[in-house]
Amino acid sequence: MKLIIIGANGTVGSAISNELGARHELIRVGKTSGDIQLDISDSAQIRALFARTGKVDGVVVAAGSVHFGALTEMEEQHFHIGLNSKLMGQVNVAHIGQSYLNDGGSITLTSGVVGDAPIRAGASAAMVNSALEGFVRGAAIELPRGLRINVVSPGLLEESVNKYGDLFLGFEAVSSRRVALAYARSVDGPETGQIYKVR
Amino acid sequence: MKLIIIGANGTVGSAISNELGARHELIRVGKTSGDIQLDISDSAQIRALFARTGKVDGVVVAAGSVHFGALTEMEEQHFHIGLNSKLMGQVNVAHIGQSYLNDGGSITLTSGVVGDAPIRAGASAAMVNSALEGFVRGAAIELPRGLRINVVSPGLLEESVNKYGDLFLGFEAVSSRRVALAYARSVDGPETGQIYKVR
Repeated sequence: MKLIIIGANGTVGSAISNELGARHELIRVGKTSGDIQLDISDSAQIRALFARTGKVDGVVVAAGSVHFGALTEMEEQHFHIGLNSKLMGQVNVAHIGQSYLNDGGSITLTSGVVGDAPIRAGASAAMVNSALEGFVRGAAIELPRGLRINVVSPGLLEESVNKYGDLFLGFEAVSSRRVALAYARSVDGPETGQIYKVR
Repeated sequence: MKLIIIGANGTVGSAISNELGARHELIRVGKTSGDIQLDISDSAQIRALFARTGKVDGVVVAAGSVHFGALTEMEEQHFHIGLNSKLMGQVNVAHIGQSYLNDGGSITLTSGVVGDAPIRAGASAAMVNSALEGFVRGAAIELPRGLRINVVSPGLLEESVNKYGDLFLGFEAVSSRRVALAYARSVDGPETGQIYKVR
């Protein structure tokens, strides 16, 4: 299969590329690296990406920013960072990309553990991650031509413990290799409308 | 208690006002009706509302628009209707309103059954409703001074069957009187971070 991996150079994206690259042809997309560059918060760039790649069998997104900050100190615009990037960036990839998918093709998005397990400073992340899971439930029943859509909700990555561990005390970390398997289930498996929680 | 009811003239808002008005002082807010007018998608108007009401013991929101439409026919801007109105309108009420709540005061938002039970034409509503539930989970653990936040997820209202019933075939309708009880649990009860599903 021919697959687009958006965020291919990130911690999760690298593991996904290792897992899926062994048996599929990958187009690696990154903000500043990879075969093609993309700012996921700009839908015009998403349109340009698919116009350049043409038809594919799947698109995987492991990209998008969200603001972490104390609720009482956040400003309205901090919420819009996650809404424009991690949420609508991924929704736009799904929404624009559906026309570029071959019959039976798949869309795989990324939410995160903060959607169902709250952490301090995580109100915006909880909102965005839950929104992505709701969107996938809603979109899965409407996609035509056997197209499928799923979302992977990774726990705290082992590789991120040094950077974010203080926010996730008591959370069991997961390896990016295990997380990548969930993306493989979405891409290579038969399911749609699923939330793959890797914890 | 002194409570602000936003969307007080709607089907759910009227039932909430009946239930809570029997024992509390209500400030009824509507888009074009009520004691004070408010366009919930405009955060400047939300700031002006609280500046005018001063301190209260609770704020209830049963307001906000979202676009229903076939996923393959939707445009990007259709998603922003729900993001700006039903999602960020309610989030801004919570975020701005927290400073105007007396200690132990409550915030009660409104999601909906489409967040967990997908219907055709409901991808944007599923996204927005799930986002609200994620936000409430995240915000509940951060609010200071014993402030509480919950969300009510009503099923299809009996009063809306004529208008929306075709989208919800097989869904058991609920009375707005039963839905209003969930808002009372949030306002008068002790809980926080809860999703009250009325089905």
